[in-house]
Amino acid sequence: MFVGKRPHGGGANLAQDEINALLVERARRGLTVVRLKGGDPFVFGRGAEECEALHAAGVPFRVVPGVTSAIAVPAAAGIPVTHRRLASAFAVVTGHECDGVSNLDWQSLARVPTLVVLMGLSALPEITARLLEHGADPDTPAAAIASGTLPDQRVVVATLATLAERVAEEGLEAPVTVVIGEVVQVRELLGAEPVGLTHPVQGLVSQP
Amino acid sequence: MFVGKRPHGGGANLAQDEINALLVERARRGLTVVRLKGGDPFVFGRGAEECEALHAAGVPFRVVPGVTSAIAVPAAAGIPVTHRRLASAFAVVTGHECDGVSNLDWQSLARVPTLVVLMGLSALPEITARLLEHGADPDTPAAAIASGTLPDQRVVVATLATLAERVAEEGLEAPVTVVIGEVVQVRELLGAEPVGLTHPVQGLVSQP
Repeated sequence: MFVGKRPHGGGANLAQDEINALLVERARRGLTVVRLKGGDPFVFGRGAEECEALHAAGVPFRVVPGVTSAIAVPAAAGIPVTHRRLASAFAVVTGHECDGVSNLDWQSLARVPTLVVLMGLSALPEITARLLEHGADPDTPAAAIASGTLPDQRVVVATLATLAERVAEEGLEAPVTVVIGEVVQVRELLGAEPVGLTHPVQGLVSQP
Repeated sequence: MFVGKRPHGGGANLAQDEINALLVERARRGLTVVRLKGGDPFVFGRGAEECEALHAAGVPFRVVPGVTSAIAVPAAAGIPVTHRRLASAFAVVTGHECDGVSNLDWQSLARVPTLVVLMGLSALPEITARLLEHGADPDTPAAAIASGTLPDQRVVVATLATLAERVAEEGLEAPVTVVIGEVVQVRELLGAEPVGLTHPVQGLVSQP
């Protein structure tokens, strides 16, 4: 039963509380329920809320951690989120939640060596503007990866100052993962095309 | 061939440049080489350096992203790194690298909703002191997880102000993953023992 978001536009088929209620209801019927998610259930996946609902209802459950797109999608584009010379910390945020962008502490995020923004397409102009306002270097390398790890993966490499404009020019479509930081340079060291819009890095990352 | 760190004490058997050279040398012999790592190769795994060495030597390679302990170990202790009500961003650092702790921007890290510190045991007193110096709330919930996901997993739950002392009292042994942030409270909502030293959350997270 599909309860998630449709690939192109349209919101969730079911609201989160409806999903929670459905999980409880099916489990109480005696069914074994698998709630399958893309990525990791505890990285902006609302998995914790589903666990809370199950626990409150007395339904036993297990959580299986996954490979998060926050790390795997940059990797598929030749970008490691950490690097001994370039980044000894990384942070992950989401650009998607309604009030998420405005509530985040951009002053702190502007100073983290690597910043990964999940679902970052629609809020990208606002995100890059806020980082620049808070003192991030406009020349910081930055990349936007659409359809990461898939055959139609597209990567735009630019700088923090130019990324939003370049992404709009290239017409990238959601889902887009954004990486901001010196680690974006590693693409070149790994033999990916150094700048501009590229196809997936052939042979660099195995397909799922 | 084991090239990594021994579980109890002792450094790497081989230095990183020796590992890089070994990968290249074996590949040039015509062998298909698998470099197997725990967690994700691009999260403090020095995977990017190995890829750079391979690319520089003209050796083709693939990278397979993994399940990072930065997310899976907190999950195994009942702690989601993000939560819609409690944390809309998380950051990951390592306490292990020689100069890592002193080079990090603790003022920024003190303001990220969830901070995960990998290999955080030996530097824990310094890390918590720096976060407190930079204005982090001493009552912030904090947890240290030893041997995460394994049968002998042990979890100490305390506050930012008391964690280092509690961990020392309980004699936790490396590897230890530290989580600092309001998300630590979710342990209780998920039915884990609310405070103090606990055994693994039975049934919460499947064993690998």
